[in-house]
Amino acid sequence: MTIRVIGLDADDTLWHSEDGFHSVTARFCELVGPYAIDPSTLAVTLDVVERRNMVLFGYGVKSFTLSMVEAAIEVSGGQVPAETIQRLVDEGRTLLARPVELLEGVEETLAALAGSYHMVVITKGDLLHQEQKFHGSGLDAHVEGIDVVSEKDARTYSRLMVRYGVEPGGFVMVGNSVRSDVLPVLEVGARAVHIPYEYLWGHEAAEHDGGVPTLGSITELPGWLSGG
Amino acid sequence: MTIRVIGLDADDTLWHSEDGFHSVTARFCELVGPYAIDPSTLAVTLDVVERRNMVLFGYGVKSFTLSMVEAAIEVSGGQVPAETIQRLVDEGRTLLARPVELLEGVEETLAALAGSYHMVVITKGDLLHQEQKFHGSGLDAHVEGIDVVSEKDARTYSRLMVRYGVEPGGFVMVGNSVRSDVLPVLEVGARAVHIPYEYLWGHEAAEHDGGVPTLGSITELPGWLSGG
Repeated sequence: MTIRVIGLDADDTLWHSEDGFHSVTARFCELVGPYAIDPSTLAVTLDVVERRNMVLFGYGVKSFTLSMVEAAIEVSGGQVPAETIQRLVDEGRTLLARPVELLEGVEETLAALAGSYHMVVITKGDLLHQEQKFHGSGLDAHVEGIDVVSEKDARTYSRLMVRYGVEPGGFVMVGNSVRSDVLPVLEVGARAVHIPYEYLWGHEAAEHDGGVPTLGSITELPGWLSGG
Repeated sequence: MTIRVIGLDADDTLWHSEDGFHSVTARFCELVGPYAIDPSTLAVTLDVVERRNMVLFGYGVKSFTLSMVEAAIEVSGGQVPAETIQRLVDEGRTLLARPVELLEGVEETLAALAGSYHMVVITKGDLLHQEQKFHGSGLDAHVEGIDVVSEKDARTYSRLMVRYGVEPGGFVMVGNSVRSDVLPVLEVGARAVHIPYEYLWGHEAAEHDGGVPTLGSITELPGWLSGG
């Protein structure tokens, strides 16, 4: 069956994201380090707090910022000063306000595909932040819309395909996360293309069995779509 | 033209919400009061910080919680202890985890309307939190879906009506906020029904000219729909 609709993951597929979380995590360690009871536990505690909060706070920068605040209090035994907490919130704000930086080749590739396919961005994260990045990226000239979802599971993909009016055989999802962009899509009988990114958030770690098409860059997508 | 699709606001239309923000604001004043340089400015500062953050943080409990943290630091001149900040984050967490409490008559009214109309919840706020409240409410038995949007403006309503496959004449929006649920809906030529709630968040304050149908309770909606 011919592919009609392309779902595009956003963070680390269309634009850089995880590198920002990496830098802010390093900044968290710098800022909170002087107050930590055991500085070697800084990054691990942040990760533990983040995972603990995930189920209630969800994905995205606001959730991450609240977790930084809690982790700072936890690792310092309540001794971190308010001024440092303010600086953590400011780091979160900077991450939210950071201009979108597209991955290489994204703009040209989507412009080239726009005439032949319906394209939609499907992403997790903060609703407002993802919409702002999408509209700020200029990609809305080529892509029809953005769906921000709370979880990328088989049920979500099924629901979205119904909404797009496409059968699984006519849909392909393109993204950097095997866990979110590949496995649940294969589960509903659609196709997936994996484009790994430099960093992978621990929470997204998963493997596929090697049978999934894996590209080095989104610029190889038109070739793959035309079967080349 | 006959109404086919009913859009339902969620917070303070289907379930209680603003009362929770009221109690947490009171708790903020209690917790931070002892450290405030001028305790009389507590609630005002929280409101100012919240409005300042709105454009970047958006609506919802996580945004509100981050604003409580910043406001506490601001009103105390950086003197608020980390322990108090942790208690503010815990208040936010409690607000997120609070069980849904439906307004009186909502369940029965939506059950009665379900056979005759398509119904969709249209709401602002945290994506994950609103979906959790919707599925936790049991209303997903009567209502077809939920759309969490970053802003309720004319463009959003137009986009949603296209997606629902309904003309403005076949759509009515029901909600407690004139600013979000009434004015932009009238602007796109659809109808709106206003059901005021006990509390109105300052940000949502707006007036309509009195020509908009105003009900005392959602239980009056079936009567209004049948022209009674």
